Amino acid sequence: MNVARRAVATRKEDNQVVVVLSAMSGETDRLINLANEIDPEHNRREHDVLLSSGEQVSVALMAMAIETLGEKAISYLGSQVCIRTDNDFSRARIIDIDGDRIKKSLQQGQIVVVAGFQGVDENGNITTLGRGGSDTSAVAIAAALQADVCEIYTDVDGIYTTDPNICDQARKLDKISYDEMLELASLGAKVLQIRSVEFAKKHGIPIHVRSSFTTTQGTIVCKEEEGMEKAIVSGVAYNKNEAKITICGIPDRPGIAASIFTAIAAQGIVVDMIIQNISAEGLTDLTFTVPKLDYDHALASLREVNREIGAREINGDKNIAKVSIVGIGMRTHANVAGRMFAALARENINIMMISTSEIKVSCVIAEKYTELAVRVLHQEFDLAEESKNES
Amino acid sequence: MNVARRAVATRKEDNQVVVVLSAMSGETDRLINLANEIDPEHNRREHDVLLSSGEQVSVALMAMAIETLGEKAISYLGSQVCIRTDNDFSRARIIDIDGDRIKKSLQQGQIVVVAGFQGVDENGNITTLGRGGSDTSAVAIAAALQADVCEIYTDVDGIYTTDPNICDQARKLDKISYDEMLELASLGAKVLQIRSVEFAKKHGIPIHVRSSFTTTQGTIVCKEEEGMEKAIVSGVAYNKNEAKITICGIPDRPGIAASIFTAIAAQGIVVDMIIQNISAEGLTDLTFTVPKLDYDHALASLREVNREIGAREINGDKNIAKVSIVGIGMRTHANVAGRMFAALARENINIMMISTSEIKVSCVIAEKYTELAVRVLHQEFDLAEESKNES
Repeated sequence: MNVARRAVATRKEDNQVVVVLSAMSGETDRLINLANEIDPEHNRREHDVLLSSGEQVSVALMAMAIETLGEKAISYLGSQVCIRTDNDFSRARIIDIDGDRIKKSLQQGQIVVVAGFQGVDENGNITTLGRGGSDTSAVAIAAALQADVCEIYTDVDGIYTTDPNICDQARKLDKISYDEMLELASLGAKVLQIRSVEFAKKHGIPIHVRSSFTTTQGTIVCKEEEGMEKAIVSGVAYNKNEAKITICGIPDRPGIAASIFTAIAAQGIVVDMIIQNISAEGLTDLTFTVPKLDYDHALASLREVNREIGAREINGDKNIAKVSIVGIGMRTHANVAGRMFAALARENINIMMISTSEIKVSCVIAEKYTELAVRVLHQEFDLAEESKNES
Repeated sequence: MNVARRAVATRKEDNQVVVVLSAMSGETDRLINLANEIDPEHNRREHDVLLSSGEQVSVALMAMAIETLGEKAISYLGSQVCIRTDNDFSRARIIDIDGDRIKKSLQQGQIVVVAGFQGVDENGNITTLGRGGSDTSAVAIAAALQADVCEIYTDVDGIYTTDPNICDQARKLDKISYDEMLELASLGAKVLQIRSVEFAKKHGIPIHVRSSFTTTQGTIVCKEEEGMEKAIVSGVAYNKNEAKITICGIPDRPGIAASIFTAIAAQGIVVDMIIQNISAEGLTDLTFTVPKLDYDHALASLREVNREIGAREINGDKNIAKVSIVGIGMRTHANVAGRMFAALARENINIMMISTSEIKVSCVIAEKYTELAVRVLHQEFDLAEESKNES
């Protein structure tokens, strides 16, 4: 009802309004449980038929709710507005959207309510986009309609410099660039689905991340621009869901890294950071991270493949965390990484692995230091105060 | 799971199988309640979007269940197999079905699971067929595929000569003709939706009404044929949901009946039986029945229209019931009605109204005699014993 009121208020300000919804709270889990009771390995096509009913219920009820508030509304499913995807069921990707039907309804003064998270493949099969897919639906529809803005309502009131639960100095950002948001999302910030940010970046649609419960301004995710805070670092992210595996004493022959990572990829395991050192005796050490859930699985398949490779030792560590700093200012500032390493060193936090990109630096540390490291880095780069870390 | 097993067993006997499902028990009511909480007068298009999600859940779960039993299965929604209807939301009528997609899946050896109760109008809007509409979906699909038989699984094990709850002599029929079934359904027997029987009759598809809980043969609804029981009377039906209204002393002018029934129809009230007598003084008495729920409403609008008509008196009676006998044998047997009236008279049951068709006779009596009348008529026409009432 809250959302309906907000849609109507926005419409009354003479905007054309499209509302994109996910399923009601708990509904998707309820449906998944029904399917798992029948067969935990159930058919993925039918999985999508099942789950997409959740959004169908949401959009019908929302259209009804909007009409009780005196505005005209019409609901559409993914298939009805041709949200075309590939046929990779349960994690399909949007290919294109035909905005004509939505535009026609908007021109008739209707508030259009679209089922998020779902689409249709070229054979008319229902597909779903995976968890958080409604964000991507919303941005893709906004792009198809060349909307002014895509507002994403969530349970937090914006994007923070870091997780407020572990750092009480965390500050809500007014704006953040697409690239920074992408890095933060891939580093563990859970507010937006990565794919939705990619879509927004590609089509230049500003995303306004804001709370469903208040009317205060949230955070705008948009192109880099003059008015944007010129922070060296915009945020500190952390991720405790990875584990580290090291293979020591690998004979340094061509193709060996390939056979290791092919073996892991064959298990459907996604590798994140990779570091390779060549040791003195012509042997190589290789360290990389995998999702904690896949750790045992990855170790087993590595021991298998090692019969051919003949590395000296395979070991690992599940008690690690990745702490990262992100900021477009890094492009123009030297030694940001050095400041990060020094800050961690002052607290005697040992760095196990390092990985960098143009706008981020990530360090793997012992898991027990995660919160300490986040607070130390938040302080080091003055994130509590707006634009304080400007050059 | 029961249904899945039955579908798989039928498939293993080398049949092509299409399963048509309604929503899970209680689901449709749950969804209607959600809508009514928002607005009891909610938008009918959105009503259909909402309700059709119920069957969507059923078909996905059923396809999964069938696959756990080792057969291939695929689910389809009404829109995916083009169950085209008009756009009279919440009580749409099927116009046609494109059986091609179903046939293709059958040829690939799949068990096809189709969502009943739902269709799609020419603009791609989701429609539903009204309560019991899944029966009609099943028969319509059977017709489109020229199936050998359409089995309808229900909570009773077939069609009975009368309601076993009030007559312990009631007997399950092996076969019944479409026309008899249509009369019984319109007279109050609730096993099959009338529309589904009309569809089956039009396309010559036999319906096998049987129980979901047992594997015993039920009742076949089919064309009149040689092998069919040559009963004068096949069944006794009753209906306690009507009320009687009498308008006495109507000036006998042309157009007066028209203005009365126009006034009632304008309220959306459906009139069933109508009787008119011309009394001695050139005045007319008119008696008819309406659904009990509409009784007060009908009386009010009649008193309104009577300001112009000037009839002497309007009165009515809610405590009535309609008792009917149905049988194709009546076409070739004289005085079936006379035997009915005599049997009721022997029990001193007064007949208030009579209406007949080619294969049925209905009498309106006081409601309190309903059960007695049903038993008396069941006995009079020897319905307890197979083919005993043959000529």
